[in-house]
Amino acid sequence: MGEHAADPSHPRYRSLLMRHRLEEAASKGMLAGSAMIAHGRGEAYDYLLGEQTIPSAMDATKEAAARLLAAKRPIISLNGNAVALAGKELLEVAQLLSCPVEVNIFYRTPERMAALLNHLEEIKNEHDIDVEILGAEPDGRIPGLEGPRANCHTGGILNADVILVPLEDGDRCEALVAMGKEVLVVDLNPLSRTARMATVTIVDELSRVALNLIQIIPTGPQITKWDNQAILHSTMSYIVNTMASYAGK
Amino acid sequence: MGEHAADPSHPRYRSLLMRHRLEEAASKGMLAGSAMIAHGRGEAYDYLLGEQTIPSAMDATKEAAARLLAAKRPIISLNGNAVALAGKELLEVAQLLSCPVEVNIFYRTPERMAALLNHLEEIKNEHDIDVEILGAEPDGRIPGLEGPRANCHTGGILNADVILVPLEDGDRCEALVAMGKEVLVVDLNPLSRTARMATVTIVDELSRVALNLIQIIPTGPQITKWDNQAILHSTMSYIVNTMASYAGK
Repeated sequence: MGEHAADPSHPRYRSLLMRHRLEEAASKGMLAGSAMIAHGRGEAYDYLLGEQTIPSAMDATKEAAARLLAAKRPIISLNGNAVALAGKELLEVAQLLSCPVEVNIFYRTPERMAALLNHLEEIKNEHDIDVEILGAEPDGRIPGLEGPRANCHTGGILNADVILVPLEDGDRCEALVAMGKEVLVVDLNPLSRTARMATVTIVDELSRVALNLIQIIPTGPQITKWDNQAILHSTMSYIVNTMASYAGK
Repeated sequence: MGEHAADPSHPRYRSLLMRHRLEEAASKGMLAGSAMIAHGRGEAYDYLLGEQTIPSAMDATKEAAARLLAAKRPIISLNGNAVALAGKELLEVAQLLSCPVEVNIFYRTPERMAALLNHLEEIKNEHDIDVEILGAEPDGRIPGLEGPRANCHTGGILNADVILVPLEDGDRCEALVAMGKEVLVVDLNPLSRTARMATVTIVDELSRVALNLIQIIPTGPQITKWDNQAILHSTMSYIVNTMASYAGK
């Protein structure tokens, strides 16, 4: 981290902190080669949001919290970037929900899986968090997906009814929806296939979402009649209005 | 590159090709740690343009070509990502203009400078391109910048009157403008400080810009009365309208 990033009053503190967390994760072998490019795309969209949780994102976060609380078998799916950016916070969310997390990565190698599982175990021990961490020995497959990324636990993702999948790719989101699950996603691009396929789409930066969930879950929010397309339109309108103000329209 | 990327008819062929070029450059030690994140940001903004040269970008490219042709001492400044994404094409542009290029990078190390200079020399030899490549032995400094990134050649950037600086950071763009130079930039984010500071801002993907310049320069375009703020507004309006159409407004 640069000298400025250590100062929480710096306007870009959190953005620089997230970059620092990614660099650390990369040095531990937790990330695929595409992770940095994916993060850069996220940075660009977050810039258009003003690097803040906009109202429609907060609504979606409350809805996601309500659905996770109401679920019979909720689970949080974690990939490399999610562990890097908000591993500790997402374990705290899982603890609040008394649900497991499952590591499930697109480019699955034994080395990366071990690095991610070890990192999560370290966080658990250091912060005295009691959460089951799945992913090491998948015994099921997500129908409709090819290759190792379909692997999952029957006691985890395969039989979950509500699944929080931060930073998911479109194919996997679609396959999970096709299984009849409620799929809650975090995606900074409101136009992505993931954002358009999901049951509830939170267009926000993951570490902010995790901190918001930690605040919201204890308040016991209730499920609403949710119109995800309307929330995406609202998000797009927010971005359009921001850009239009720059464009002097 | 994945199997699809080898097929030029694939809709995302060029985007995947650029990612492949960056990965190759990284493996050769040409890039700083932040290069991939910066590229990801570019990918996100390019997505909002439909991964194409929009009319305002073509106008800006013609204006840049005209100003480079009319310059007394034009130069092209190259950083790691510029060399990786369009090194060959930018050397061809320099050859058409009979001007030098100068390697000038933010995080300057002897190893990265050597990797970049060697890569450019290889391209020159392989494609029989006759262009002077500066950067190895800087003997001047850009006023107002601190550290190694201020280093430059007196026979290159320091005394140039018109400078094409693809993918430049805001500080350096500002310092070059303060020296009284015409600064022509390529930046996919129309809201960036670089985009707002420059004399002419081309909001487009660098390899497309380089190919366009190779087409345009031989036609001998003329300098116009240029309103860079108007072109940025036009670009923003394009993006706003694209997003508004998605938002159903």
